[in-house]
Amino acid sequence: MRPDAARTGACGHRLTALGAPDPGRLSLNQITLNRWTLREAVDGCARHGLRWIGLWRDKVADAGLESSARLVRDAGLGVSSLCRGGFFPAATAVERRARIDDNRRAVEEAATLGAGLLVLVCGPAADRDLAAAREQVGEGIAVVAPYAAAAGVRLGIEPLHPMFAGDRSVVVTLAQANRMAERFPADQVGVVIDAYHVWWDPEVNAEIHRAGRRIAGYHVSDWLVPASDMLMGRGVMGDGVIQLRELRGEVEAAGYRGPVEVEIFNRQVWDAPDPDVMLERIRARYLEAV
Amino acid sequence: MRPDAARTGACGHRLTALGAPDPGRLSLNQITLNRWTLREAVDGCARHGLRWIGLWRDKVADAGLESSARLVRDAGLGVSSLCRGGFFPAATAVERRARIDDNRRAVEEAATLGAGLLVLVCGPAADRDLAAAREQVGEGIAVVAPYAAAAGVRLGIEPLHPMFAGDRSVVVTLAQANRMAERFPADQVGVVIDAYHVWWDPEVNAEIHRAGRRIAGYHVSDWLVPASDMLMGRGVMGDGVIQLRELRGEVEAAGYRGPVEVEIFNRQVWDAPDPDVMLERIRARYLEAV
Repeated sequence: MRPDAARTGACGHRLTALGAPDPGRLSLNQITLNRWTLREAVDGCARHGLRWIGLWRDKVADAGLESSARLVRDAGLGVSSLCRGGFFPAATAVERRARIDDNRRAVEEAATLGAGLLVLVCGPAADRDLAAAREQVGEGIAVVAPYAAAAGVRLGIEPLHPMFAGDRSVVVTLAQANRMAERFPADQVGVVIDAYHVWWDPEVNAEIHRAGRRIAGYHVSDWLVPASDMLMGRGVMGDGVIQLRELRGEVEAAGYRGPVEVEIFNRQVWDAPDPDVMLERIRARYLEAV
Repeated sequence: MRPDAARTGACGHRLTALGAPDPGRLSLNQITLNRWTLREAVDGCARHGLRWIGLWRDKVADAGLESSARLVRDAGLGVSSLCRGGFFPAATAVERRARIDDNRRAVEEAATLGAGLLVLVCGPAADRDLAAAREQVGEGIAVVAPYAAAAGVRLGIEPLHPMFAGDRSVVVTLAQANRMAERFPADQVGVVIDAYHVWWDPEVNAEIHRAGRRIAGYHVSDWLVPASDMLMGRGVMGDGVIQLRELRGEVEAAGYRGPVEVEIFNRQVWDAPDPDVMLERIRARYLEAV
């Protein structure tokens, strides 16, 4: 398709934005270059002209919360999200309360960092009972959402790929995330759409449209064929089979114009001999393939 | 839950069948003990008192079609299904016609074997275009279904786990399989429900109920945690996290009373030093966990 060709999104809007994405919206989710400390990642973003970074709590803890906040602020970077809260289901009420307390701490960290968004990876069932675990996720979000709203932090429910249903998230489709989010005001609870987690879904375009202004974040990587490692097998955009440009078109047609985080869990990317070369490649692929 | 406890299925029926399943419904899908030839698998089923076997085309070809038919008939076994047709999407019309021709041959093989069901693994997109590939699946089924019906063979659309969307099937949810099947008479095109492929789906119970008499087959194995290999990482029933008894309850409440195929892709199971010991274990776990 020619870059200037118009098409129609699921919502019936004409899409005209299928050219390269706005470079100013590119965000580096720091898991992508996991060997970098927070300081190194911030410096890397600055060197490559990125305006956004997505932070992880463990890296923030390593660098210190206040130091981290200062580093990103001094670099003039926006924090597109903090990863991650969630993991609500647990076997006992005591443990579930502990998880909620941890989510409150994550909210406070997000607020300190100036991250308007806390990504929720909702967690697996404590036993085999998916329905009970999904209830517990809803209960956890109901407690944390007003607390987060008061702190100026929006919660973003991220549906994970169904292959993570056993060990990471009982929330596995965008439809399910939308249903959960819709119980709350849109400015308190949104959804985070990661192309890698949702690309396979026959309902994805319809659910992107349904999410609308609840779309709180958009993540990209690629699905490699053959697929290898479930957790660490994500590809750089353009190396796999996801129709990333079309998907971004849908997300934009639904109204989202915020940062686009590159979040690649991949051992080879982590182990790149020169992270700067990898970041340059990521930036180029963002423009080419996303 | 006590074995005699009653519960209510998604369809509102009271379920009372949560005790052990009928041993007479157990079927060995021969991929589970893949080192066995067709003759060895037939003999194994006979030794262990199984009444059903699920066959694979490559094994049938190895043994010869007529010989295979005679072997299962002489052993008094029913053929619960033939695996597999499908793989409809392709880059060119010529190649798509070749795929359809192959499906016609699969139908003829199923008819010769006395298999009332041909399982369809629908295939991946030839390029990245999922929507086009899904159209091609529908077109392929539309051509093959009447041909199969005339041969007394029902087609069973098997939705695969979304982690196979890139390389094996663009049909990845039971909702999608139901929608596709509903374009045809129920006795011509049904759905095959494999617990491993659908257990994660928040809509699974509703879609099982919707499938109703279109349920043409039910497959079981288990999802291990941690999950390892995407293709070869299935567990023996009871070793993983799928709520297999509840799921069988839903399938039965929806009206299905046919064979239950044990289909385990697992290198350790294949390499079991004594396949008879493994088959005995599978039989025991079927009764305990399914």
